[in-house]
Amino acid sequence: MPKHNKIDFPVGKVRRFLEPGPVVLLTAAHGGVRNIMTMGWYTVMEFTPSLVGCVIAGSNYSFELIRRSRECVINLPTEALSDEVVGIGNSSGAETDKFAVYGLTAEKAERVQAPLIRECHANFECRLADDALVQQYNFFIFEIVKAHVARSPRHPRTLHYIGDGEFMVAGKIITRRSKFSPELLAD
Amino acid sequence: MPKHNKIDFPVGKVRRFLEPGPVVLLTAAHGGVRNIMTMGWYTVMEFTPSLVGCVIAGSNYSFELIRRSRECVINLPTEALSDEVVGIGNSSGAETDKFAVYGLTAEKAERVQAPLIRECHANFECRLADDALVQQYNFFIFEIVKAHVARSPRHPRTLHYIGDGEFMVAGKIITRRSKFSPELLAD
Repeated sequence: MPKHNKIDFPVGKVRRFLEPGPVVLLTAAHGGVRNIMTMGWYTVMEFTPSLVGCVIAGSNYSFELIRRSRECVINLPTEALSDEVVGIGNSSGAETDKFAVYGLTAEKAERVQAPLIRECHANFECRLADDALVQQYNFFIFEIVKAHVARSPRHPRTLHYIGDGEFMVAGKIITRRSKFSPELLAD
Repeated sequence: MPKHNKIDFPVGKVRRFLEPGPVVLLTAAHGGVRNIMTMGWYTVMEFTPSLVGCVIAGSNYSFELIRRSRECVINLPTEALSDEVVGIGNSSGAETDKFAVYGLTAEKAERVQAPLIRECHANFECRLADDALVQQYNFFIFEIVKAHVARSPRHPRTLHYIGDGEFMVAGKIITRRSKFSPELLAD
């Protein structure tokens, strides 16, 4: 399992990792309890402040940890962690410490209490920014307040869930830079 | 450019196409005007009703068409349409009819006035379900009321925007079905 060397990354540019739509691992901690859950239903909402909207079903053990602590970390796993991602998504933190069960390393975050997962390609520390749609849709709007990204590879082989136990793995990169307006390349 | 033969698809199962996070083309129509825009910031929010939350910036010509008609169609382009996707994302419908400029075929939808794009792999007809966060975040919650999907290929080579004029193209499919709980495979 890779142990990445990470650097600080501008929070206003995390769309690079989240807009392509990979499944992520959400970590949460509250009252001495921690957990990891998988999440596939989320979207970037703004560059600055760096907002991400996330659907977290109330049936998740992490739901109350996040609602009460008003914090979480979005961790970006790659293909190397596919078995861990599936295991985490198919078990409940009510019974087990998923860090121990799946051999993942919890690292201290800088701005939140929730832990970073060391083995992930990137870690985005989040604070709850708006809970207006939590009751009706389980929809949390977080602000990313700190971003850590591995130096390499430049294009992580992320996992994109398509349902039915299947994932699409990130494929080739194509560029169309020459056909873009300069102001759109700034983002 | 492929002309697909499409079949009806269950609206409760569109996560298969949208959860992996591809860039989509949104079509809208109102008062005799129609338009196409690119969209990368959206998320599945519920299976039933089939809800999708979308960020549509007020600077888009489509914003008012959608706000007033309370409808749109989410069209799913593939790699074969990458030049059209980039052109559409880098031009404004205020000046041109993008269907004509990019050689795309508008087809009549069943449940909404906005047109389907024939050359796309799938078309999801949407009605506005909740505008509570439109003013503050440009966030529209739509219900997909009708879904049309091409018979093949089974795994479309979708485009996933990573910023800076670059796209990740959908890669290989891996299965982990044997490690999933039966109740999670139903979705």
